[in-house]
Amino acid sequence: MTENKYDAGFNKFKNIYGELGISVLQNVNQTSPDMAKYIIEFAFGEIYSRKGLDIKSREIVSISSLLTLGNAVPQLKSHIHGALNIGCTRDEILEIVIQILLYSGFPNALNGLQTVKEVFEERDKKGINN
Amino acid sequence: MTENKYDAGFNKFKNIYGELGISVLQNVNQTSPDMAKYIIEFAFGEIYSRKGLDIKSREIVSISSLLTLGNAVPQLKSHIHGALNIGCTRDEILEIVIQILLYSGFPNALNGLQTVKEVFEERDKKGINN
Amino acid sequence: MTENKYDAGFNKFKNIYGELGISVLQNVNQTSPDMAKYIIEFAFGEIYSRKGLDIKSREIVSISSLLTLGNAVPQLKSHIHGALNIGCTRDEILEIVIQILLYSGFPNALNGLQTVKEVFEERDKKGINN
Amino acid sequence: MTENKYDAGFNKFKNIYGELGISVLQNVNQTSPDMAKYIIEFAFGEIYSRKGLDIKSREIVSISSLLTLGNAVPQLKSHIHGALNIGCTRDEILEIVIQILLYSGFPNALNGLQTVKEVFEERDKKGINN
Amino acid sequence: MTENKYDAGFNKFKNIYGELGISVLQNVNQTSPDMAKYIIEFAFGEIYSRKGLDIKSREIVSISSLLTLGNAVPQLKSHIHGALNIGCTRDEILEIVIQILLYSGFPNALNGLQTVKEVFEERDKKGINN
Amino acid sequence: MTENKYDAGFNKFKNIYGELGISVLQNVNQTSPDMAKYIIEFAFGEIYSRKGLDIKSREIVSISSLLTLGNAVPQLKSHIHGALNIGCTRDEILEIVIQILLYSGFPNALNGLQTVKEVFEERDKKGINN
Repeated sequence: MTENKYDAGFNKFKNIYGELGISVLQNVNQTSPDMAKYIIEFAFGEIYSRKGLDIKSREIVSISSLLTLGNAVPQLKSHIHGALNIGCTRDEILEIVIQILLYSGFPNALNGLQTVKEVFEERDKKGINN
Repeated sequence: MTENKYDAGFNKFKNIYGELGISVLQNVNQTSPDMAKYIIEFAFGEIYSRKGLDIKSREIVSISSLLTLGNAVPQLKSHIHGALNIGCTRDEILEIVIQILLYSGFPNALNGLQTVKEVFEERDKKGINN
Repeated sequence: MTENKYDAGFNKFKNIYGELGISVLQNVNQTSPDMAKYIIEFAFGEIYSRKGLDIKSREIVSISSLLTLGNAVPQLKSHIHGALNIGCTRDEILEIVIQILLYSGFPNALNGLQTVKEVFEERDKKGINN
Repeated sequence: MTENKYDAGFNKFKNIYGELGISVLQNVNQTSPDMAKYIIEFAFGEIYSRKGLDIKSREIVSISSLLTLGNAVPQLKSHIHGALNIGCTRDEILEIVIQILLYSGFPNALNGLQTVKEVFEERDKKGINN
Repeated sequence: MTENKYDAGFNKFKNIYGELGISVLQNVNQTSPDMAKYIIEFAFGEIYSRKGLDIKSREIVSISSLLTLGNAVPQLKSHIHGALNIGCTRDEILEIVIQILLYSGFPNALNGLQTVKEVFEERDKKGINN
Repeated sequence: MTENKYDAGFNKFKNIYGELGISVLQNVNQTSPDMAKYIIEFAFGEIYSRKGLDIKSREIVSISSLLTLGNAVPQLKSHIHGALNIGCTRDEILEIVIQILLYSGFPNALNGLQTVKEVFEERDKKGINN
């Protein structure tokens, strides 16, 4: 059954983050295979696979939380890519950053904006439209 | 024109938070009228009134950010009430709390859950269904 | 197999936190049965049951992290009780608080000390020696 | 020589916070005499006694840092009292709170405002003018 | 009237941060013109232009808050430059960093010190004396 | 007597962090000799030299706090080196990171893991076995 959680999680993870996500995961796996397992099995097989909140809203939750933490740049990048991959627009991402300045202040919003900019540029270079 | 921002903000604010929100605002106004003005004029007249992200998604952003901060209980209460007022379901609120534990850890999620519980109880007492 | 994780986690949890822990868990279970399940199954059945770091050191990690968060008073209380239950001394708890002021500053250390004081008083009232 | 640091720190501490400060210190001393000693000897005998920044500016630094932490209410109260005792005006305290919303967001500013309000009321009750 | 807030804010901003500030602002403007507008119109036209606290004290508030956040290096750099531009001494900046270690711990103070060092070196290279 | 605190602190510091630590300290000393003095005299001469908690447990406290802060990479590196120098195993360090994800979330744990990986690689390059 746990095996199934892993498989369900891996499919969910791959569908959202694609090849970029897989390479991040392999990097984690090199230092701590168990941490990589928890990401897939618990974070994606369990939490992300829950009903009751659609996947786009889940990514909005994740991006809002990561922007508020303010020190989680690699994870913020992954989740912005993921949100765009599953149908968020670039404008929606920018609106989340602007909304967050109310709760988390200008510095976190501005540093979040810089990360957003870098993700947009990475996607432009690869010819990804949204 | 700024006057209009205030009016637009106040209407937006009242529509989301109702009488409970107004009483919070009056409390702020007693100590700092300018802070109360910034909440209405900037936070609601300017940011919450922006296009590009629907109001339900904006409340999801706010609640996610407040849960991540972990020390903003009165604001979290107001925004959970607001989110329920404008159409979020109780299940969706619970899902946001569960999702947040991935980024912000169990303690913030558990303390957020306690706040959610108190809001649900307040609404039950007043006979509000959702 | 997941069932086993739950059972293993519940035993681990009960051994550390005793009746007080069970009542906290029941409170969580009332609002979110899934959150209660994740605490037992993931936090205790999975993470706390890992080899490679003894249980006393794990509680030192938990208390240090909770003191640093600074806003997780109920969880800090539970883990101080737990640490004392499994063999930490009161002096060791106080030393963790003093050590933490270097990394997290005086306010977090002083507020942590207040929580420690309250736990010690609860245990004194119940006639628990350590 | 360390003895002198303690004496210098205690005088500095008493001059800023008065009787209220002493009672806070005695409370700390009951649970951890060494923590109380570090507050006097290191925080006040060493850091607060440094040249190069006047005492009023030091209190502005402390209050700004405590507002930003957002979870240090007892310490924030003590330092607002201290700042008012040594010549800050109530208006200046309110301006610090408003300024802080730019960096730390509305929730921390609003919760800080609530603490400021309580300190003002405590002083009004005791008939203290500023 | 909002137009005037923008103009007042821009003059205030330019007077404090000079050319370096303008280039930071242009970078923000490329990704989010509205965020750049909020910085000028709200942060500087509204908050920084308030009476009741002198501009040097406002920069002390900002630097203390940014040091406490600990993850806002680009903003900390800008505000250290700004504080020095309007009359703070290098020694006063160093004293703020030392004072902050009491509330925010050694790591934030040490990383803040590293940022201060880099700002001092930038100014030395440009032949700016203070 | 303070002189003795400095000497005791310096010996303690050198025994834990070795040459790498000394070079970090010299860097701090260039910008702020007093900050360097406080690290040695207060952090190591006073706090780290206390009885009541063994040195390995103190490093576990430090690493747990630094992982939870999430933005203190240089200090985390130093303390991981220190912990390994005084007898922690690499596996124990990895277990602390995994344990921390419960309280501080996946992003802090994953970024902590990256820092751990870099420390392990630095030690491998220098031919240090543990």
